[in-house]
Amino acid sequence: MRVLGLDPSLRSTGYGVLEFNENRYVVHAFGTIKPRRADELPAKLLGIKAAIDELIARHAPEEAAVENPFYARNIKTALILGQVRGAALVAIAGRGLPLYEYSPLEIKKAVTGYGQAEKDQVNTMVRTLLGIEEAVEEDASDALACAFCHLNTRLFQKLL
Amino acid sequence: MRVLGLDPSLRSTGYGVLEFNENRYVVHAFGTIKPRRADELPAKLLGIKAAIDELIARHAPEEAAVENPFYARNIKTALILGQVRGAALVAIAGRGLPLYEYSPLEIKKAVTGYGQAEKDQVNTMVRTLLGIEEAVEEDASDALACAFCHLNTRLFQKLL
Repeated sequence: MRVLGLDPSLRSTGYGVLEFNENRYVVHAFGTIKPRRADELPAKLLGIKAAIDELIARHAPEEAAVENPFYARNIKTALILGQVRGAALVAIAGRGLPLYEYSPLEIKKAVTGYGQAEKDQVNTMVRTLLGIEEAVEEDASDALACAFCHLNTRLFQKLL
Repeated sequence: MRVLGLDPSLRSTGYGVLEFNENRYVVHAFGTIKPRRADELPAKLLGIKAAIDELIARHAPEEAAVENPFYARNIKTALILGQVRGAALVAIAGRGLPLYEYSPLEIKKAVTGYGQAEKDQVNTMVRTLLGIEEAVEEDASDALACAFCHLNTRLFQKLL
């Protein structure tokens, strides 16, 4: 089972492609999608959509996992985040991938065992769990954490 | 000048294609895009994006005008509306149309001369101004009002 994890945001959308195969995790890709600051909003959204399209085409994940934001700081942030999520979901649906959503609490618990973990703790645990030695941007580790959470959920379902 | 006006919402996205040509308004199309209720969110967003794609391909508007929501009832509504706007903006940018945004106040003023007009007043004025005799759904008249607002702004700029 290969999963695309996403952590959408306008400035820096984290992504990670993670597989569980023969009892171990394989990291196929991770990084961030950063639209050019000078671009207008529609161009930024189109760029994010196109980058996700390309990730799916290249790494052929079977399912997608995205953090479900139950809150945002304010209405303006929620509208912006919503637009980025919309662009991402169009790419995911366009490639026929089923989408799974997890709360920040579920994701943090899956990775650290603790729902209130800080971003840098998630980062450290993701790198440890997946055996990544180089530095990983926090948006990318959040995306990998989301993919990890989904894979664990899937594995748990199979074991039941 | 031919304009695509949009009033995005998950249940019913209004659209209108409006042209100003030789001193009169020509309505090329109007209506609503309504995703199937049974579909999941990504499929709904993809459907809205595909429908807008098709409208642009068929009616060849040169510019797009969308209402800019400065507020929403709450964070949840803002996230949902944001996602629909994201899908719409991906379609608009994908076809290379410049996007213009207007506040609800500007749109109502352009059509009724009054920023606090009710939806049914906007509906009546749009039908009167554009000579539409049949009934028009309110989401569609809102989209036509947005296109009208943009055309007026453009005309005004040319006259200056």
